[in-house]
Amino acid sequence: MSILIKNGRVIYGESLEIMDADVYVEGNKIVKVGKGLKESADVVIDAKGKVISPGFINTHTHLAMTLFRGLADDLPLMEWLQNHIWPLERKLTPKDIYWGSLLGALEMIKSGTTTFVDMYFHMDEVANAVNEAGLRAYLTYGVVDLSSEEKAESEIKEALRTLKFIQKLNSDRIEFIFGPHAPYTCSPGFLRRIRELADEHGKMVTIHVSETKTEVEQIKEQYGKSPVELLDEIGFLRDDVIIAHGVWLSEKDISILKKRGVTVAHNPASNMKLASGVMPLRELLEAGVNVSLATDGDASNNNLDMLEEMKLAALLHKVHTLDPTIANAYTVFKMATQNGAKALKLNTGVIKEGALADLVIIDFNKPHLRPIHNIISHLVYSANGSDVETTIVNGKILMLDREVLSFDEEKVLDKAQKVAEDLLSR
Amino acid sequence: MSILIKNGRVIYGESLEIMDADVYVEGNKIVKVGKGLKESADVVIDAKGKVISPGFINTHTHLAMTLFRGLADDLPLMEWLQNHIWPLERKLTPKDIYWGSLLGALEMIKSGTTTFVDMYFHMDEVANAVNEAGLRAYLTYGVVDLSSEEKAESEIKEALRTLKFIQKLNSDRIEFIFGPHAPYTCSPGFLRRIRELADEHGKMVTIHVSETKTEVEQIKEQYGKSPVELLDEIGFLRDDVIIAHGVWLSEKDISILKKRGVTVAHNPASNMKLASGVMPLRELLEAGVNVSLATDGDASNNNLDMLEEMKLAALLHKVHTLDPTIANAYTVFKMATQNGAKALKLNTGVIKEGALADLVIIDFNKPHLRPIHNIISHLVYSANGSDVETTIVNGKILMLDREVLSFDEEKVLDKAQKVAEDLLSR
Repeated sequence: MSILIKNGRVIYGESLEIMDADVYVEGNKIVKVGKGLKESADVVIDAKGKVISPGFINTHTHLAMTLFRGLADDLPLMEWLQNHIWPLERKLTPKDIYWGSLLGALEMIKSGTTTFVDMYFHMDEVANAVNEAGLRAYLTYGVVDLSSEEKAESEIKEALRTLKFIQKLNSDRIEFIFGPHAPYTCSPGFLRRIRELADEHGKMVTIHVSETKTEVEQIKEQYGKSPVELLDEIGFLRDDVIIAHGVWLSEKDISILKKRGVTVAHNPASNMKLASGVMPLRELLEAGVNVSLATDGDASNNNLDMLEEMKLAALLHKVHTLDPTIANAYTVFKMATQNGAKALKLNTGVIKEGALADLVIIDFNKPHLRPIHNIISHLVYSANGSDVETTIVNGKILMLDREVLSFDEEKVLDKAQKVAEDLLSR
Repeated sequence: MSILIKNGRVIYGESLEIMDADVYVEGNKIVKVGKGLKESADVVIDAKGKVISPGFINTHTHLAMTLFRGLADDLPLMEWLQNHIWPLERKLTPKDIYWGSLLGALEMIKSGTTTFVDMYFHMDEVANAVNEAGLRAYLTYGVVDLSSEEKAESEIKEALRTLKFIQKLNSDRIEFIFGPHAPYTCSPGFLRRIRELADEHGKMVTIHVSETKTEVEQIKEQYGKSPVELLDEIGFLRDDVIIAHGVWLSEKDISILKKRGVTVAHNPASNMKLASGVMPLRELLEAGVNVSLATDGDASNNNLDMLEEMKLAALLHKVHTLDPTIANAYTVFKMATQNGAKALKLNTGVIKEGALADLVIIDFNKPHLRPIHNIISHLVYSANGSDVETTIVNGKILMLDREVLSFDEEKVLDKAQKVAEDLLSR
């Protein structure tokens, strides 16, 4: 299959240069970018007045939590978890997770996300939904041992079973990633075993680290060191690790993350909504740590809109430091695209010859995107996910002119609503 | 003219009760809200699966600054103003302002704003644009005297000329409001004269107050008191005053604002983007001060999307205070609707019998708005302006199913682009 996108304004390469050009896609790759391309293609898309952007990479979410969107807000973290989220999670069936994931995948396609990292449970159903939807994903069953050997065994068994299930899908878009939940729910011995398994199977690792002040204090009390120091001491941290949140990081933590090549997945909306705190972005960037962007789950955001997330990231750090120059539009745009690709060692996140064909077309014929002075600024500060018109992943068109092609949108909306209502009535 | 909106989910009254109901509009008023209304109407709209919400009230903006959207971002305030905004503003012609305002009006209609307060210059052209667009607005020529008697005279002359121009339009939607720019650009004597003129003409007043720390320090050095104390001392503050920003307010300032019945227009996006600081929302609400919501101009936001602004307000105050319970969805929704109406002493901002027919219909058949657990939460945390489908102001349909009826959208997009490009080339 080949696609020729004509007459667009292309955000080209790592430097985000704006080029008036065509983009030619063959198979799952971008083959040519240039003016007046003459290639014949199976599908030709006219992108006049539109912007061709790399697709967005959401490096931390819990897809099926779409089902809990708006169910409980504005609550202290523990009340939210203990009285609302956890009781419902215990009731979730694999089928619920399938429909919740498909709703999340639909939301991502409609707002321009092309790749994401997901941690949840009943991951076979997440994988099935993602496989059907056509997105690129790194999926993990989130494991905890709670210092119990028995729990550790059953969790590892389920993780390896999930790994095999995903391998059997034989998809070039869906990968398994190991996902120990967090240092406060996983013992050091358990974390070491996960690290070994990741090496053995050649898979990446993602983990929640230092999201709240309370959890950092708890770890310090228990081990006499910060969560990052603890993880480093047991040899857990490498350049195949993505830590989610990293809100409460010391100078020493940051230098460890840099030394080990760890990526920090920044979740501004969730950190703000749950009042977790503000990630030290300036310090991380100054130290040269790779920082990617993420939405976290729908229950604490409450959407998966990476364009909105970019604005939140930029604005949060400006007001927090009282410095309007930090987190500029280019920095934040790279966090949402190429930094995510770097974290995942994926040949995507940019538009250039040879990169994976994960891209989106954004309609700028809208009052909130005019006049056009600076395309990157508009995408970060003025646009939202609904401005995405066409979404292409791995060379396949998932949405064209706002119409989702890979599955039945209406059916997903209806089923997800019914599943959520049924869940509450159980 | 009459409109019957059938089968909607209505956000009813001050308490934001969700009612499955029809809404019947006659002339410029909401006449009936209830199930199965049998009134015949000129226009019948089916709102099945949709939400009928009060329109949003944006209590502080500079509409024509749409022309500067994305032109200069991520800069220190003075560099931004002196090297980018002010030089361009000096070049703006009345025609530029007309097209910039029409672009802003278009953006507002498409994102569900029905009423706004605007401060700028060449206000005849803003009034013409707003009159054509069909929005409800309070317009002011922003005056400064810079301690010059001559300047004061010419500014007052222009303000009164604008007042008369707006009176002659004879619109029941467009009002003049007095707008001294700020205590640091207007002398106390000048502010006293504006106060007297407002009383004499029975008009309201709006003014920038305590937006940045620097300006508060400057006023303190010059007068030995805070801007709010200074304004109170000269008898400026009454319940017909809207102060924009109010970022750097002392406890004493807040008690003065409460005592005088002043409204504070909160501009979270602008305060964050320009790194001005965080308005003390908790303290203002605890003191019982009326707080409304606003976007500020497009140059410092960079859009006029009140739905996005609600999310920013909620999230900013949670993370700033590390308390997830403050600025809950209901509080913030009221800031964006009924608190704005209260500030303007307008019988709108709620849907109930007898209120002005300023309302919007929002399509919830979208993945990021499903499942529907809580409508107010979805509007604050999950929705964006592009979800607004139909906008009605003063009983007139300005947009129906995303199509703007009051003027030619394509023409405005094109003209605004040309005007902006021409401005930069001058």
